[in-house]
Amino acid sequence: MKTLFLDAIHCKNISRPPVWIMRQAGRHLASYRALRKRYSFLEMCHEPDLITEVTLLPITAYGMDAAILFSDILVIPEAMGLGLRFEENIGPLFEHPINSVADIEALPEPNTAKLHYVAKGINQLKKQLTIPLIGFAGAPFTVASYMIEGKSSRDLKKTKQWMLKDPASFHLLLKKIANWTTAYLHMQIDAGVDAIQIFDSWANALSYDAFGEFSLSYLQNLIAHLKTPSILFCRGSSVFAPQLAEISPNCIGLDWNCHLPSLRKKIAPSIALQGNFDPDLLYAPLPHIEKTVKKTLAEMAGEPGYIVNLGHGIAPDVTEDAVRTFVDCVKSVR
Amino acid sequence: MKTLFLDAIHCKNISRPPVWIMRQAGRHLASYRALRKRYSFLEMCHEPDLITEVTLLPITAYGMDAAILFSDILVIPEAMGLGLRFEENIGPLFEHPINSVADIEALPEPNTAKLHYVAKGINQLKKQLTIPLIGFAGAPFTVASYMIEGKSSRDLKKTKQWMLKDPASFHLLLKKIANWTTAYLHMQIDAGVDAIQIFDSWANALSYDAFGEFSLSYLQNLIAHLKTPSILFCRGSSVFAPQLAEISPNCIGLDWNCHLPSLRKKIAPSIALQGNFDPDLLYAPLPHIEKTVKKTLAEMAGEPGYIVNLGHGIAPDVTEDAVRTFVDCVKSVR
Repeated sequence: MKTLFLDAIHCKNISRPPVWIMRQAGRHLASYRALRKRYSFLEMCHEPDLITEVTLLPITAYGMDAAILFSDILVIPEAMGLGLRFEENIGPLFEHPINSVADIEALPEPNTAKLHYVAKGINQLKKQLTIPLIGFAGAPFTVASYMIEGKSSRDLKKTKQWMLKDPASFHLLLKKIANWTTAYLHMQIDAGVDAIQIFDSWANALSYDAFGEFSLSYLQNLIAHLKTPSILFCRGSSVFAPQLAEISPNCIGLDWNCHLPSLRKKIAPSIALQGNFDPDLLYAPLPHIEKTVKKTLAEMAGEPGYIVNLGHGIAPDVTEDAVRTFVDCVKSVR
Repeated sequence: MKTLFLDAIHCKNISRPPVWIMRQAGRHLASYRALRKRYSFLEMCHEPDLITEVTLLPITAYGMDAAILFSDILVIPEAMGLGLRFEENIGPLFEHPINSVADIEALPEPNTAKLHYVAKGINQLKKQLTIPLIGFAGAPFTVASYMIEGKSSRDLKKTKQWMLKDPASFHLLLKKIANWTTAYLHMQIDAGVDAIQIFDSWANALSYDAFGEFSLSYLQNLIAHLKTPSILFCRGSSVFAPQLAEISPNCIGLDWNCHLPSLRKKIAPSIALQGNFDPDLLYAPLPHIEKTVKKTLAEMAGEPGYIVNLGHGIAPDVTEDAVRTFVDCVKSVR
C-alpha cells in the first residue's frame, strides 16, 4: 500500500504532502452524476457494490493519496430508526426527529448489524485499493443537531435551545449517539479502514466553553481506543484547535479561516494538520488555484505532518479541471 | 455624560464593565414590535423622529451603558440607488443588485445629502441621551456581499466567485463602498456620535489571507482618520483578531467562538475587547444566564478595556426577562 497519507498522519512524511478532498466522491464528478441518475443517494450509501464504485471514482479521476468511504454521517440515526430520506435541493429529512426526552430514551441500543452493508463495502474496497482507506462518522454534537432539527438548519436554533434548557437530556442523546458511533467505528476498523475521520461540521455554532462541554469529551471517548489513526475535523477548528490538541488525535482537520503556518507553530508537532484551502478556491481561474496552492506548500515545506485538503467539503458545481489542477499542483511540488 | 463605555473603550475603566447588545433596538422588544405595526422597517430607518424613538427603547427598558443608532448597514447601497426593500421572513432585497463591472463603474460618487436623515436623528438623540451614542456602518466586504447577492445569502457564493474570478473589479466595488462609508462616518461624527462600530458580519466566509486582502485594508482606511474611538466587529474575529489588532482599532468586537480571557492575553492591552456571549445564551433559563455571565466577568475582573456584549446580534425571539437578567447581572457585579 502507498503510505504517503499514513506517513503524514504519523508526522513522519519526508516526501511531498499527501492530498485528498472532503466529499471527493460527490456531485462535482460527471461519473457520480451519471450514477445518481440510476440510483438515489441512499441506495448508493446502502449497496456495497455502489459504495465501492463511488468511493473509487475520484481515485480513478485524480489519483488521490487516500480514499474516503462513500457514505453519510446520518446512516447512524437512520439505523436508530429515525427514517431518513434525501430531497433534491433540500437535503436530509428525518421522518421521526427527536422531539422529546421520551424520544431520546426510546432510542435503541447500538446494533451494528444494521450497518453491515458499510463493512461489506469496506471489505470490497480493501481488495482493490492501493492507497489507504479513510472511514468516518459524524461527531455526536453534529449528528444530534440533525436528529433534533430534523433537517439541515442554518442556525441550529432548536438544538441549541434544547442544549441550554435541558442539558441533562441533551447529554443523554450525545451519549447514545456516541455509543452507536464507537461500535460503528470499530466495525469499520475491523472491516479494514486505515484511518478514521470524525466530522463535527456544525461545531462552529458553539461557544468555546460549550464546545468543551458538549463536543470535546465525546470526541475524546470516540478516539480513545481506536486501533487506527484519527483525524478530528470541525468547522470552528480554526478556533478550537488548542482544545482538540488536548485530547491528542493523530491529526486535526482545519476549516479555512485560520492561517495554517501560524497555527502549525501553536499545536504540538506530534499532531498532524490537515486542510485548509477555502473550498471556493476551486471556483478561481486555474492559474490562481496553482498560485495559492504553491504559496501554502512553500510555507509548509519540510513539515512531516501535513495533509492537503480543503477546509470543508467540495462544492457540487466546481469543475473537474479545477480539482485536477489542485491535486496535480500538490503532486508536482518539489 | 456617563463615561463607563468610553472609559472602557479607552482601556481606562476602573469600575464594572459597561454593557450594550448588538441589535438591542430590535424585534425582541414588545415596544419595537408595536411600532413596527405602524411603520415599515425602512420608514423607521428613514425618519429622524423614529430613529430617535427606536434608539431609545432599549435604553429605557434596560438602562444600557451605550446607545447604538437605530439604522441598517444597507442604507449606503440604498443611497447609491440599488433600490432596497425588506420582505417579511426574507430580509433585505435589492431591486438593482450588482451584476456586472459596468454596474460597479456606474455607482455614483459619495453624497451624504442622501443620508442626512441619519444626521438629523443623531442630532435629536444627542439632546436626550446621558450615555454615549454609537454610530455604525457595514464593512465594505459585507456590504459588497449584499450588493452582489441581492439579498441575504448562506454561503456568499456569487460574491466569492466574483472576488476570485475578477479581483480587480471586486476591489473597485470595495473602494467605492469605502469612499461612501468614510463620508458617512464623518457625517455621523460631525452630527455627534461618540464612537463608531464597523460590522463585518460575513467576514467568516473568507480565508485568513483573503480577509487580509479583501477586508482588512479597507477597515484600516475607514478608521484611520476618525475623531472618535472605533470598534471593529467581525464574525470570524475569533480567528482574525490578531490581524485586526495590527490596524490598531480602539476595540475589537468578538464573535462567540473564542475564549475571551485567553484571547485577552494575545491582544495588545491598549486595544479594548467587546463581546462575546453566545447570542443563544438568552434562550437559557435565567439562573443559567446569570451563572454564565458571572463566570466570564470573574475571569475578566480588573480588566480596564472590556465591554460586555453578545458575539452577534440578539435574536428576535428572546424574552425581555432574559435580556434584563443579562444586563442586570453585569451591572450588579462587584
